[in-house]
Amino acid sequence: MTGSDYSRLRRAAAAVRRVDPAWLARAAARLDSLTKPPGSLGRLEQIAARLCAIEQTLSPRASPRRVVVFAADHGVTEEGVSAYPPAVTAQMVGNFLRGGAAINALARAAGAEVCVVDVGVAGTIDDRGRCARLESRRVREATRNMTREPAMTDAELDAAFGFGLDAANAAAADGVALLALGDMGIGNTTAASAITAAMARLPASFVTGRGTGIDSETHARKVGVVTEALRRNRPGHDPIEIVRTVGGLEIAAIAGACVGAAAHRIAVIGDGFVATAAALVAAGVCPAFIDYWFAAHRSTEPGHTVQLALLGHRPLLELEMRLGEATGAVLAMHLFGAAAAVMTEMATFDAAGISNASAAGDVAAAP
Amino acid sequence: MTGSDYSRLRRAAAAVRRVDPAWLARAAARLDSLTKPPGSLGRLEQIAARLCAIEQTLSPRASPRRVVVFAADHGVTEEGVSAYPPAVTAQMVGNFLRGGAAINALARAAGAEVCVVDVGVAGTIDDRGRCARLESRRVREATRNMTREPAMTDAELDAAFGFGLDAANAAAADGVALLALGDMGIGNTTAASAITAAMARLPASFVTGRGTGIDSETHARKVGVVTEALRRNRPGHDPIEIVRTVGGLEIAAIAGACVGAAAHRIAVIGDGFVATAAALVAAGVCPAFIDYWFAAHRSTEPGHTVQLALLGHRPLLELEMRLGEATGAVLAMHLFGAAAAVMTEMATFDAAGISNASAAGDVAAAP
Repeated sequence: MTGSDYSRLRRAAAAVRRVDPAWLARAAARLDSLTKPPGSLGRLEQIAARLCAIEQTLSPRASPRRVVVFAADHGVTEEGVSAYPPAVTAQMVGNFLRGGAAINALARAAGAEVCVVDVGVAGTIDDRGRCARLESRRVREATRNMTREPAMTDAELDAAFGFGLDAANAAAADGVALLALGDMGIGNTTAASAITAAMARLPASFVTGRGTGIDSETHARKVGVVTEALRRNRPGHDPIEIVRTVGGLEIAAIAGACVGAAAHRIAVIGDGFVATAAALVAAGVCPAFIDYWFAAHRSTEPGHTVQLALLGHRPLLELEMRLGEATGAVLAMHLFGAAAAVMTEMATFDAAGISNASAAGDVAAAP
Repeated sequence: MTGSDYSRLRRAAAAVRRVDPAWLARAAARLDSLTKPPGSLGRLEQIAARLCAIEQTLSPRASPRRVVVFAADHGVTEEGVSAYPPAVTAQMVGNFLRGGAAINALARAAGAEVCVVDVGVAGTIDDRGRCARLESRRVREATRNMTREPAMTDAELDAAFGFGLDAANAAAADGVALLALGDMGIGNTTAASAITAAMARLPASFVTGRGTGIDSETHARKVGVVTEALRRNRPGHDPIEIVRTVGGLEIAAIAGACVGAAAHRIAVIGDGFVATAAALVAAGVCPAFIDYWFAAHRSTEPGHTVQLALLGHRPLLELEMRLGEATGAVLAMHLFGAAAAVMTEMATFDAAGISNASAAGDVAAAP
């Protein structure tokens, strides 16, 4: 159903359970039995333990891997907030389908398939490319201009959440082990800034960055636009009302996919500023979701660090990326493959007949 | 020849040229033509540009990939500086050959082959495993105890350098594009600490960490051992005399492989504290080497940050690893594959028919 009570999203959220600490403990004990000093693989061991807890096994999988890029346009681009014209959204979706975008190159390197879901692109997409799957699920052609009215109606938001939930269901049906969620939409860092300001209760100027690379004059205008959108809509602190009034269709869909993936116990790899705005919404609706989410990287967008602090997650990579499309998420997938390989392929001290630390008369100290 | 004039190492060093800034500029221009905001892939673009400059092409390769782990024992373990007994060096080499160590799991995940070179292991290696190639090039069974006498003679050091140069030559002959260099040797963080203290002209206490995980009493003894080794040997500031008197056979071999790989224009992926001590020696002998070296990660060993500062490199990963074996280097290899894919697989704005930033009337500002 698609009403305006968000019942599909709420049912999925109710199905999400925190990961079981007993699985984390079992994984930690196993890691300490492997032929390496305890803890010496650092955060790779933390990834391994959480994968074990998510999948409820000591032999976690890190593939098949899928990246879903949700694309939509933004009415707020009328205000002149981006370095690129809105037509680029549809053009870039065509580029995804032809395999020429950064996400295509990085997904191939990561062994991940690329799916694109159009939840609100304005205009025609050249869909002749065959390098990625396109699903046309347009809720409407772009959100409304949030400086004048709410970006979406309840029914539109509910539909966008639903298309995200559908993507999570499809990933579960296909046995996907790692799901990267990303965005494409000219103007969407403006929406992400508004969501972040509202969720963090901070002024727009604290969380609004330069997006794809705007000049100082445009940046000042963008801060004013975010401030005006929040003043006009007064979304309060409810995450659903925030994403409805100052969010985006692709952001809502990513939030739905986040909650749906957690309900299916699939590890979700977060991306940059826009996808993490969606994770904030998902965590607001469903706090347990956060156990299934990994912060892939730290974007150079100033608001991304605010988002990560709100979510209580440290990023795995800090490579000064700021592209979106799930490029950071896909780049981090290799770490999950490595963590799973540690769990499943390494020998124990006992099996390998190797003297453990105690043989030297020392007890290994905490680092 | 293997004399004591280090002529092979010096000839290789003389063959190393700084990378050509014109190639970096060509790569940067190409990156800016691709369908992404300029600079939005952050440090991945820097990797891509340097790979282009190293390989002198705009279509760089990031494979075949090889990891060479040099193994040796250390006479200084007599002083009780490690959490593990020296027998673990030979046992772990056996584990490498059987495929049960962390480096095996991570190298498989990275698509890299594993080679092990024994340049000074004490005792018998169970070489029945067939998961990695073993080359037996023992200079001697362990270094001498550096608190009593120099760790090596000139002839021994020259031989160790030579086995590293041989490994680089073999990598070049086999067309290797990415070479990770790692270490195995109980006691070798003590040698790496002594090298780092001498190269950085810092007290031992500043750069000596807990290695595989020693307790506070052992750590205090280790600091004293490093201090005594430097007092006894007085190596001064010459990198060759430093590695000869307070280094290790595997560290010297890694240094030789570093210089040799640079001479063959092969990208060298550095690892943690021990392998980076070798990179310090290589850079001391051959400053241009540093253009061919990448800092894969930042170890939790305090001296590693000192080494990276001396080399002027920022690490790509910061995952709190401290294992050695080239595990950090191999984990970072994926970033090079991704960077190469960006250069070779992405479409340009022109080819994809996508409106570039100027179409919106804005000039993209520096981030």
